[in-house]
Amino acid sequence: MQTIGIIGGGQLGRMMALDAKRMGYDVIVLDPVEHSPCGQVADEQIVAGYDDLEAIGELGRRTDIVTYEFENIAIASVERLEEHGFSVTPSSTVLRVTQDRLAEKRFARECGIPTAAFAPVAWSADIDAAIESVGFPAVLKTTRGGYDGKGQWRVQDRAAAERAVEEAGSAQLIWEKLIPFERELSVVATRGADGTVVSYPPGENHHDDGILAMTIAPALVAPEIAERARAIAKTVGDGLKIVGTYCVELFLLADGELLLNEIAPRPHNSGHYTMDACASSQYEQHIRAICGLPLREQRLRSGAIMMNVLGAGRGNVLTGAKELLADPDIVLHFYGKRHAVARRKMGHFTMLVDGTPGEDDVARALAAHARLGWADP
Amino acid sequence: MQTIGIIGGGQLGRMMALDAKRMGYDVIVLDPVEHSPCGQVADEQIVAGYDDLEAIGELGRRTDIVTYEFENIAIASVERLEEHGFSVTPSSTVLRVTQDRLAEKRFARECGIPTAAFAPVAWSADIDAAIESVGFPAVLKTTRGGYDGKGQWRVQDRAAAERAVEEAGSAQLIWEKLIPFERELSVVATRGADGTVVSYPPGENHHDDGILAMTIAPALVAPEIAERARAIAKTVGDGLKIVGTYCVELFLLADGELLLNEIAPRPHNSGHYTMDACASSQYEQHIRAICGLPLREQRLRSGAIMMNVLGAGRGNVLTGAKELLADPDIVLHFYGKRHAVARRKMGHFTMLVDGTPGEDDVARALAAHARLGWADP
Repeated sequence: MQTIGIIGGGQLGRMMALDAKRMGYDVIVLDPVEHSPCGQVADEQIVAGYDDLEAIGELGRRTDIVTYEFENIAIASVERLEEHGFSVTPSSTVLRVTQDRLAEKRFARECGIPTAAFAPVAWSADIDAAIESVGFPAVLKTTRGGYDGKGQWRVQDRAAAERAVEEAGSAQLIWEKLIPFERELSVVATRGADGTVVSYPPGENHHDDGILAMTIAPALVAPEIAERARAIAKTVGDGLKIVGTYCVELFLLADGELLLNEIAPRPHNSGHYTMDACASSQYEQHIRAICGLPLREQRLRSGAIMMNVLGAGRGNVLTGAKELLADPDIVLHFYGKRHAVARRKMGHFTMLVDGTPGEDDVARALAAHARLGWADP
Repeated sequence: MQTIGIIGGGQLGRMMALDAKRMGYDVIVLDPVEHSPCGQVADEQIVAGYDDLEAIGELGRRTDIVTYEFENIAIASVERLEEHGFSVTPSSTVLRVTQDRLAEKRFARECGIPTAAFAPVAWSADIDAAIESVGFPAVLKTTRGGYDGKGQWRVQDRAAAERAVEEAGSAQLIWEKLIPFERELSVVATRGADGTVVSYPPGENHHDDGILAMTIAPALVAPEIAERARAIAKTVGDGLKIVGTYCVELFLLADGELLLNEIAPRPHNSGHYTMDACASSQYEQHIRAICGLPLREQRLRSGAIMMNVLGAGRGNVLTGAKELLADPDIVLHFYGKRHAVARRKMGHFTMLVDGTPGEDDVARALAAHARLGWADP
């Protein structure tokens, strides 16, 4: 095993590649945009669309294993590789479930994992049934392709639901009961080719307008809840027979119940902190899994608060980084993106703290984050 | 500051580039061999010799700052960049001293740093004076270009000295008193553009036939000795006005005296462990220094034992790595070199231990190292 192919040249692919290179692998990435974040650090980039089957085939021929950094690629691409006997991890079966919120929720239920009540909504005629079986308040989501809060509508009444369905056009929707959860947790786990599952302690996620803003790790929850969250992650990995790193997002309710919200069959934004706070990162674990190497049991070397650094659309020059760079507890990461478009994920930082982060630590991370900005060049 | 140029595409450049990329910089490397270890992870490689002034000029024009990963490059290359107003760090002045063992030792003496007794030897006529001023046992070294034990002769008598001088041909030599030292220590330090010097605790080095085999960090020495070693590193950095990461190799004598052996004006093999055991690596500190960013005070997050993995000339397939990969305390690094030529540095591993490494830890590292081998593909 010498060369790894990655479909998708964003920051997740980049961080995979950085670890793969440290481990001595060659990396070829496929992405439509030249000099992509991952392409910059890979041995080579094939400049082509994710649905360009010819280019995908070339990637398969020139590498020993193909993986991907995000789940919204054409299943046909992955199937084509599989049909030709190329090794692709995770498999198209995993993609088929995780690309579709309905399939995902049904899969969870089949595995005995609780989820919010849900109902499929294809057109407005389905609204009545959804109201009856699930009711309000609800959130309507496109079953495919939505991320970072796109393709979602919170609805409190029938009129709002009608508008959402209309706005969604022909997209298949899922009607989910809006859950008054206490916290959102995520568990990043890796399943090896031999079926071993190794997970990191759950982190606590905070979003800002649908985009992950902050992950606090480990989450301040009772050990029993942390164990239950990790058990859910293991059930998901085993059920889907994922090989690689994946993430389950969970809602923690006031009564301690955990509901599965989402599965990402790849390293996840909420696991960035593992690069700085753990013996091996979620990316290294992913590379280990897809290359058939043993996984490592993980313990946090310290607590961590990860905050995303989003673009502001006001030019492309970061300001305020020097103060953060001087802080011995902060590690800054940037993705080599050329344009700091508004709300684009440009980088992140991890603040390392002793033990489980508390309110003071969060305040310190927020203050550090507030120092960063974007100015005209 | 956006683009960093690196002269030299080996593993040191590669590890610089990996950190620079994480920090969001673009990297262009210049190396004569296509797809060099550093070129693999850089944005681009200019394929040209280190003395190709036209190519060096192109590197200067296309980057905001130029640095180098080893000190045996043509001074003319660095001077040419400086003459044209390009920013090069460390400067040609630093190179001029550190490329020449005589200049280096004289510089040390001028700074009040003890060294072994030495004398210049250009031809056999100089031997008498050297015997009188320094005596036996001695080691004769070429003043330029030697590394990993090459260009060195241990001599016990005049006849051996005559043979060494003959073998060295027209090379300028330095006659150094062979010191019966207790340990070899090295201090990796970084000096910022503002003159701040930050150093890591001294490590203890063990060589095998002239090539570094193992670094134990922190070295098990009295705090007073560690402080004195770091003070020497600071004196060297200030004296040379280095901007960047550098290393001083020291001999610790039985009576506690420290003698300067060598200065490397760049990140050093004995500082590899900082990647896994410290908040920021020697490479990140180097990038910070040359880019005018604040340096970080360092403390070891854990003790560490670094062992080099050398090629064996018996093919190019590593064996035994799986067991090491399963060890939660070991981090493996490989450099993407295509051919496991005998005694070529192919990679290294760091074993993290609690506190200062002891004999048991060293035994465990040696046992781990013994598991690795090279087999025919």
